[in-house]
Amino acid sequence: MKLVTYKAGKELHPYRIGSSVEGRVVDLQEAYRHFLLSEGEVDLAMSVASLLPADPHVFYQMGPQALKRACRAEAFARSEGLNTVQYRAEEVKLGPPVPKPGKIICVGLNYKDHIEEMGREMPEYPVLFGKFANAVCAHDQGVYHSKLTEKLDYEGELAVVIGRRAQEVPEKEAMQYIAGYTIANDVTARDLQRRTPQFLQGKTLDRSAPMGPYLVTADEIEDVSNLSIRTFVNGEKRQDSNTGQLIFSVPYLVSFISEIMTLEPGDVIMTGTPNGVGFAMNPPQFLKDGDVVEIEIEDLGQLRNHIIPKASRF
Amino acid sequence: MKLVTYKAGKELHPYRIGSSVEGRVVDLQEAYRHFLLSEGEVDLAMSVASLLPADPHVFYQMGPQALKRACRAEAFARSEGLNTVQYRAEEVKLGPPVPKPGKIICVGLNYKDHIEEMGREMPEYPVLFGKFANAVCAHDQGVYHSKLTEKLDYEGELAVVIGRRAQEVPEKEAMQYIAGYTIANDVTARDLQRRTPQFLQGKTLDRSAPMGPYLVTADEIEDVSNLSIRTFVNGEKRQDSNTGQLIFSVPYLVSFISEIMTLEPGDVIMTGTPNGVGFAMNPPQFLKDGDVVEIEIEDLGQLRNHIIPKASRF
Repeated sequence: MKLVTYKAGKELHPYRIGSSVEGRVVDLQEAYRHFLLSEGEVDLAMSVASLLPADPHVFYQMGPQALKRACRAEAFARSEGLNTVQYRAEEVKLGPPVPKPGKIICVGLNYKDHIEEMGREMPEYPVLFGKFANAVCAHDQGVYHSKLTEKLDYEGELAVVIGRRAQEVPEKEAMQYIAGYTIANDVTARDLQRRTPQFLQGKTLDRSAPMGPYLVTADEIEDVSNLSIRTFVNGEKRQDSNTGQLIFSVPYLVSFISEIMTLEPGDVIMTGTPNGVGFAMNPPQFLKDGDVVEIEIEDLGQLRNHIIPKASRF
Repeated sequence: MKLVTYKAGKELHPYRIGSSVEGRVVDLQEAYRHFLLSEGEVDLAMSVASLLPADPHVFYQMGPQALKRACRAEAFARSEGLNTVQYRAEEVKLGPPVPKPGKIICVGLNYKDHIEEMGREMPEYPVLFGKFANAVCAHDQGVYHSKLTEKLDYEGELAVVIGRRAQEVPEKEAMQYIAGYTIANDVTARDLQRRTPQFLQGKTLDRSAPMGPYLVTADEIEDVSNLSIRTFVNGEKRQDSNTGQLIFSVPYLVSFISEIMTLEPGDVIMTGTPNGVGFAMNPPQFLKDGDVVEIEIEDLGQLRNHIIPKASRF
């Protein structure tokens, strides 16, 4: 299933959970309500809000049960061709798959080819740093170019979304704790990242963590350690690698991080970027207003964002 | 006003916003309801949940209006001696002043005396790093001693809680965006902090950010740049400084951070620790199970926590 968050009509409404089916968006709660009614479950249909929450955060918190109901809802909408619960792409605005993650944990230097590019040693432990939810934005939303930076850069990454509370999870069980995967751009202001020894201030500018276009549920990805990943700037290929280059694998990272901190549904792990960042080019190439960054990961679609100047509040 | 969060009775209930009055806890929503009834505002009293939300996060999101109503509610409870909306200390369990902050932004190396102790240069920019909400715990709750670390250390700190959305706030207006202040212990696993160049994994262990006992609203603190701050371990004084030693002042930090990222109500800024951390002692002294850490900041009370082993999930 390809989970999305979306708004239809009035912008003020909060994002609702949906799924992407052949270019359309299915409202999963509404589809589930129709499914329950078709089964004669009138009472359950009246409590659909608690059975399949429309709020993305509450939906992810429900874990595997919500996902299972979502699957059933989507299958029903497909088989019945329910038009009243489906929207055409142009009728909706997509949000980030997880609009407000409680944590965004980024992994630095996790591709063999990127480490060679940066001239670093192979790390003994994953390097972890954070971004906050203010950075999150959606597919096709503008990434802000803050006036604070002259060195804005992209980092195409595979992002893991946690599906169940995870504490001290052994590596061999770690995959059970993953809701799914999406594409992320760990947009980085290289000058702010480097002006102190800690990366945070270069990593969490507003709208510097675009994610999407959808979350592909874990059951649809056969081998997460063998997905091609490519990044284009204005159509020019900059990154071209494969998740097989990851030094610390997806299950290793989930296990490692869950030893340190309790992971909650909706938490995001950005697994690191391969070689080819603008900063490492000769001469370095940074992002300018109007640039378009496209990141493709096999089976996860394409995340596209343009760079726009950040309007001052003054 | 000294804002608290508390639970009375059943543990399963979520924390409610209250205030600490002479050792008692006043339920602010209930007190406000009584106030409205005393004014003959029956209709308003019926909508009290939206006028003065009991949920701490929703309360802080309402900003100055909620604080104003809380003041009125507390004054009414005091003057009328309303017993039905007050609890004795032993009847309640205090939570952290902000149970789930969206961001916890920590400032490193921000006391002149601590920089001398660590043998560092005076920084040109604040060093920022993050903790996540999994780290938050309350006054009198046990701080977990994870088996991952043999070098658990305290850092007594003044914490600033944001009261209004803050974007690109000039330093001279910054104080208007502060809801209030509390005491924080930026508990740090020195070995995990140092095993990679980024601090995060040593900073955000579960229950490594105790805060409390209450949030003192900004109007009650005359000069935040002149508060004594002291830390004791098992009664032995370890840190003894004054917020006048801050290199980057509270309004400077709010302004600086708000240029980088949008700050939201309930976000926490931990302003850095003075000299006297266990790591810098000769020989270094780390925290052991059973140790009691007490941090006192003038006008903000005392934050006390004991160290307990973290039970494995196995």
